[in-house]
Amino acid sequence: MSQKRMLIEYADATPEVQKIYDDIMATRGTDWINNFWKVLTHDPATLRRIWSNVKDVMGPGELDSLTKELLYVAVSASNSCHYCTASHSAAARNRGMTEKQYSELIAIVGLANETNRLAAALAVDIDDRFL
Amino acid sequence: MSQKRMLIEYADATPEVQKIYDDIMATRGTDWINNFWKVLTHDPATLRRIWSNVKDVMGPGELDSLTKELLYVAVSASNSCHYCTASHSAAARNRGMTEKQYSELIAIVGLANETNRLAAALAVDIDDRFL
Amino acid sequence: MSQKRMLIEYADATPEVQKIYDDIMATRGTDWINNFWKVLTHDPATLRRIWSNVKDVMGPGELDSLTKELLYVAVSASNSCHYCTASHSAAARNRGMTEKQYSELIAIVGLANETNRLAAALAVDIDDRFL
Amino acid sequence: MSQKRMLIEYADATPEVQKIYDDIMATRGTDWINNFWKVLTHDPATLRRIWSNVKDVMGPGELDSLTKELLYVAVSASNSCHYCTASHSAAARNRGMTEKQYSELIAIVGLANETNRLAAALAVDIDDRFL
Amino acid sequence: MSQKRMLIEYADATPEVQKIYDDIMATRGTDWINNFWKVLTHDPATLRRIWSNVKDVMGPGELDSLTKELLYVAVSASNSCHYCTASHSAAARNRGMTEKQYSELIAIVGLANETNRLAAALAVDIDDRFL
Amino acid sequence: MSQKRMLIEYADATPEVQKIYDDIMATRGTDWINNFWKVLTHDPATLRRIWSNVKDVMGPGELDSLTKELLYVAVSASNSCHYCTASHSAAARNRGMTEKQYSELIAIVGLANETNRLAAALAVDIDDRFL
Repeated sequence: MSQKRMLIEYADATPEVQKIYDDIMATRGTDWINNFWKVLTHDPATLRRIWSNVKDVMGPGELDSLTKELLYVAVSASNSCHYCTASHSAAARNRGMTEKQYSELIAIVGLANETNRLAAALAVDIDDRFL
Repeated sequence: MSQKRMLIEYADATPEVQKIYDDIMATRGTDWINNFWKVLTHDPATLRRIWSNVKDVMGPGELDSLTKELLYVAVSASNSCHYCTASHSAAARNRGMTEKQYSELIAIVGLANETNRLAAALAVDIDDRFL
Repeated sequence: MSQKRMLIEYADATPEVQKIYDDIMATRGTDWINNFWKVLTHDPATLRRIWSNVKDVMGPGELDSLTKELLYVAVSASNSCHYCTASHSAAARNRGMTEKQYSELIAIVGLANETNRLAAALAVDIDDRFL
Repeated sequence: MSQKRMLIEYADATPEVQKIYDDIMATRGTDWINNFWKVLTHDPATLRRIWSNVKDVMGPGELDSLTKELLYVAVSASNSCHYCTASHSAAARNRGMTEKQYSELIAIVGLANETNRLAAALAVDIDDRFL
Repeated sequence: MSQKRMLIEYADATPEVQKIYDDIMATRGTDWINNFWKVLTHDPATLRRIWSNVKDVMGPGELDSLTKELLYVAVSASNSCHYCTASHSAAARNRGMTEKQYSELIAIVGLANETNRLAAALAVDIDDRFL
Repeated sequence: MSQKRMLIEYADATPEVQKIYDDIMATRGTDWINNFWKVLTHDPATLRRIWSNVKDVMGPGELDSLTKELLYVAVSASNSCHYCTASHSAAARNRGMTEKQYSELIAIVGLANETNRLAAALAVDIDDRFL
């Protein structure tokens, strides 16, 4: 029994899962499903739940959809999640992110990780004005 | 001997440090210095180096200054750095971040941390289209 | 000189190391040694120390051995440690973990990582009742 | 404007939020709401979404409810989330976790964090049998 | 029932624990026990195990004892563990660490956290010469 | 469009970048450039900035250059950054790190990650003597 789960393709999915795949493609305006969902599908309840969360959180709001993807990339890169950095930077490029913007984003991720440790190591007290 | 270093106020700083404090306030359009810098000042070389990095990375670029602060907040919140989340969310508010936008940002930080672990735990292979 | 250390197989190990390998196999009821130990063996003192810790911590206690393995998998998955997730989920399956239980575990790991960041980002005070 | 958000008590909540508070208390068999939810309430959509996830993931399944809480505590402790460790270890105690079991859990969290780094630092390849 | 465990002082400890406390003080050449051990004591088996590990790992070796403490501080600061940074930087100061050295160490911790994320985000392949 | 950026070799670099490559090799006393810099070069401003930081932080100070590399390796290994552990342990070996010292370092990284979680999970208060 393998730790690595097979990808469940559209043709092999249950009608219930196909409906979720359809919603993912329709919401994103694409004609394919990326591997993350094809693996999650082994547990249809989790597939449904996570997709519902992503659709909710990444859907229309006060932050525009490019900014939302940039934030997702930044957290994923900070966590060294290779898959999520790849998939969400592709999504950000589809929404117009330039290579120069990507470089600026990565620079912020790096610098924030540096100053986050400095602030913690030096046990800096929060300024009254920030409270 | 204390792990916690005293804050070095402007009046007590060397002329060299005062020049950096002046540059921080001028660049940010504020009339005060937050604790992070007042603690870093115990090591003037690091103060100078980190400020130079922050000025560079957070200065004008292809990403606007609000987006840059949002990204800084997102990484800091993801790293559970309380000080940096407080200081950079204050900076983001000064650049127009609304409470609704802050809530959306925090929701993305939470969700990305969830899916980052799912992708890693399930060892999802990166799609060819992302490479 | 390589960062990657060769695997030290039973036949090539010193008698001292063979005795530890024997104890690992006897304790686990298996007839093979996984790579983690074969790499650690380059530093026999660390091999001995870590095995002694694992034997102690994962041995009989008030938590049953399946629950202990589930906890090990959860921490490893949360830390995105691919090797440890693979080896301890294999151990958990040997103790009866079903695929459905594994899915539930992974879902908890994901969700906890989400709410951990929300609690930190929002600086929630601990309730008196919890203290 | 403060980073720290006020707690929104039942009496001050909207009817919509009161219904969620009621569901939290009914589901958990308690007569009070912990601070996490009272802070999340500032963003009712996130309150509703996160509660729905927690109810789903932590509800009846193949893992019993004590094991689920133990897993939640383990991840939270591994992430050094003080609030979540406090709240979920309280929940685990309510479901019967003994102090001895808590000690065993904490020991596993510590040890897993140690061996996770050893496995990564030594770049151990995953055994074929685990794949 | 509190998440926070009382400190178990020498006078209130069992003879078995007092012997470990004695060994800690003798090994370190001090006449007091820091809080970490006084809390661990609630689980005497873990107290004994962790102390045995610390004594082993931090004892005489090819790295001198100051360097070992510096490494411990660096990892603790990188993990934002306030307690461990405080206790091990005190130990490092006792072994001669200067404030200037501490500043250099913190700078390395910050910078490594920055470049660690850059290397991961940019998916840099390991050079053949490093393998 | 690929997430993975090509390596920019010396011969293909702009004169501006070649000058930085020359400085890296001169400072390190080597005749080649490792992949990290060849990837960073896609964003020359970041290449210049990060190299300037590394040169500064890792240059002569009160900590000797071997100790500095050991600290860099420790943080990188603790963060599970495979590339940085490989490149900085190569640098440490060049400065005289023995395999035995590397094993001791890795053991400290592992143990610190264990006790960091214990201290956080048990919410140990910092001793007055450390403040």
